[in-house]
Amino acid sequence: MNNRQFKLARRPVGMVKREDFEFVTAAPVPEPGDGEVLVKVLYLSLDPAMRGWMNEGKSYIPPVGIGEVMRAGGVGVVVASKDSAFAPGDHVVGMTGVQEYATVKGKTLTKVNPKLVPLPVYLGTLGMPGMTAYFGLFDVGAFKPGDTVVVSGAAGAVGQVVGQIAKIKGAGRVVGIAGGADKCKYVTETLGFDACIDYKHGDVKAGLKQHCPKGVDLYFDNVGGEILDLVLAQLAMHARIVICGAVSQYNNTEPVRGPSNYMMLLVTRSTMKGMVVFDFASRYKDAAIEMGGWMAQGKLKSREDIVAGLETFPDTLLKLFKGENTGKLVLKVAEG
Amino acid sequence: MNNRQFKLARRPVGMVKREDFEFVTAAPVPEPGDGEVLVKVLYLSLDPAMRGWMNEGKSYIPPVGIGEVMRAGGVGVVVASKDSAFAPGDHVVGMTGVQEYATVKGKTLTKVNPKLVPLPVYLGTLGMPGMTAYFGLFDVGAFKPGDTVVVSGAAGAVGQVVGQIAKIKGAGRVVGIAGGADKCKYVTETLGFDACIDYKHGDVKAGLKQHCPKGVDLYFDNVGGEILDLVLAQLAMHARIVICGAVSQYNNTEPVRGPSNYMMLLVTRSTMKGMVVFDFASRYKDAAIEMGGWMAQGKLKSREDIVAGLETFPDTLLKLFKGENTGKLVLKVAEG
Repeated sequence: MNNRQFKLARRPVGMVKREDFEFVTAAPVPEPGDGEVLVKVLYLSLDPAMRGWMNEGKSYIPPVGIGEVMRAGGVGVVVASKDSAFAPGDHVVGMTGVQEYATVKGKTLTKVNPKLVPLPVYLGTLGMPGMTAYFGLFDVGAFKPGDTVVVSGAAGAVGQVVGQIAKIKGAGRVVGIAGGADKCKYVTETLGFDACIDYKHGDVKAGLKQHCPKGVDLYFDNVGGEILDLVLAQLAMHARIVICGAVSQYNNTEPVRGPSNYMMLLVTRSTMKGMVVFDFASRYKDAAIEMGGWMAQGKLKSREDIVAGLETFPDTLLKLFKGENTGKLVLKVAEG
Repeated sequence: MNNRQFKLARRPVGMVKREDFEFVTAAPVPEPGDGEVLVKVLYLSLDPAMRGWMNEGKSYIPPVGIGEVMRAGGVGVVVASKDSAFAPGDHVVGMTGVQEYATVKGKTLTKVNPKLVPLPVYLGTLGMPGMTAYFGLFDVGAFKPGDTVVVSGAAGAVGQVVGQIAKIKGAGRVVGIAGGADKCKYVTETLGFDACIDYKHGDVKAGLKQHCPKGVDLYFDNVGGEILDLVLAQLAMHARIVICGAVSQYNNTEPVRGPSNYMMLLVTRSTMKGMVVFDFASRYKDAAIEMGGWMAQGKLKSREDIVAGLETFPDTLLKLFKGENTGKLVLKVAEG
C-alpha cells in the first residue's frame, strides 16, 4: 500500500499557497503500534482554524511543525487495529491529518455509524462545527429564549447550525450575515433564518438596524474584522458576543484588526468571550444525541460542500478563505 | 448671591481645550423648586468620563448639551431646601455640575458626614471611583482569592482602590501600571501593590512577564490602547478583563484603537466585560460601609489631588489626560 500526504513545507505569509505544502505521493503506510489503529481516510474536514495551526506562536494548540503532515480531522474506516476497542471495518472520526492512511491512537478516535447519517455529517453538524455551534451558543453565549441572535459566516459549517438551533430553542429573531445572494437564499429559505444580510452587496449596518430593531442580544462571531465592529455598534443591553473565529483576519499580512467599537461593551454592559470547542469534549455525546434527534425530525438541516481528490487539498482549502463554500467544506479522499 | 459656572460651549475635537467651555461669572443663583435643594458646592469631582460626556452620540448617558452647565459630581453644603429630607447645613453629594451653586433634586442627593472622612473622599474612595473599583473587581471581574490582578491607571482614583481591595480580599499578586516613577512609588510603597510597571519609562511586556509569571487572571482596564493589547498577550486561562474606561483614547482624533490581540480571549477562554457603576446603585451603601471599615482600620488608603479655584477647571481637567494627577483629582470650589 502507498500513502499520499500533504506536509507543511513552510509557514505561510498572508494567504495560504499551494507552495506552503509538500505533496508526498509515495509515503509508506505505517504499521499501527500498541493501542494504535490504522485508518483509511474517506473524508477530511477543512476548517478555517487550519490556517491558524500553520502559524508559529502561542495559541490554543501547538502549531503544525514544518515537515509534519498537515493536521486535519477526518472520518475513515479501520483497516488494522492494535486497540481492542476497534476492529477492521469500523468507521471512526479523529485527527487523521491530510493523508490517505493514518495511524491514530485508539483512545482519540470515536466510532460513528454511517447508517444513521452520511459520513461527512460527522465532520460537520455532528462533528466539531456542530459542537462548536451548540456549546458556543448555549454555554458560552448563555442563549435565552427570545434573544435576537446574529451569526456571521451564516452559511458556513458552524453558522448554519447556530442559527437553526437558536430557532429550535426559541430565539426571538435569527439573522445571518453571509457573502452573496446564493448563500443568503440558502440561509433564509432552506435553513429558515428570519433574515440574512449579504455583506458583499448590502449595507450591513442598515441591515442590522432593520432586522434587529431591538438590538443584538447574542452575536456569534466567526469572521472578526469590520463586521464585528458593525455588530458592536448595534448591541442591545447586556449582550453577549461569542468569539469563535476571525476568518477575515487569518490571512492578513497586516496586524489583526481589533474591534474599534469595543467600548460599546461598556455602554451596553456586554460581554465578549472566547471559546475553544475542545473544552466541552466530555459533553459532545449529549449534544450529538440532541442534535441527531433534531436532524431525524427534519428540524436541523445540514449541507456539506464536498470536493473530491486529496490532490486538490491546497486549492480546496482556499475556498474557505475566498468564501466559496456553502455549508461544511469536506474533502473526499476515498470511496466509503 | 452670584453664581459662577462653566458651560459647554462646543463639542471638543481631540484634546479638550479651554475654549470648549464658556466661563459665566455672573449667573443667577436659582431658587430651589418643590423637592429641590440649593447646594453650595465645596468640591467637584474631575473624572476621565467627563470627556465622553462632551461628545455627541450613543453612550451610557446622554451627552451634555451645548450651552448647558458642564456635568460633574460634587460635594457641598445645603443652603436652602424644599425637600423635607434636607436642611441647611447638611453636607451632600450629587450631580451639581461645574458651578458654585446648584439646585438639585433632593432624591438624587446623598447625605455625607464630614466628621467621618474629609469631604473629598466622598468623591473618591467612598464615591463613584471607589464604587467602580469595588463592583468592577468583585462583581464584573468575578475576583477570586489567589488571582493575579493587574490594574492600569493604578495611581488614579479607581486604580488605587482596585489594587488595595484586591489585596485585602486575598489576591495572589497585585500589579499596577502607571506613568512615572513617582506614581509607581506611591502605588508600591504607600498602597502596598506587589509591583508597579512604569509604562512611560519601562517595557510593559517584560514587566508583565516578570511580575505575573503565571499570567494575568484579572485585568481592570482604565486606559485601553496599547496597554490593553499587551495585557491581552499575557492572560492566564479563563481570565477576566473589566472594561472600565479607555482614557488613552478619549481625546483621539483618529478612531479608537481596538485591541488587536482580542483573539487571545479565544486562546485563553477569557472574558471581556464592560461596566458602568450606576448599575450597582442599590448596593453602594453596603460597599461604602465595607470600604469605610477598611479605611478606619488603615487597610485602605486614599489620596486626593486637590486643586483650588473653580476658574482653573479646564486646565485642571486636562491634568487627567496628561496623567498629571496622583490619586483622585478634585477641584476645590469653596471652603467647607
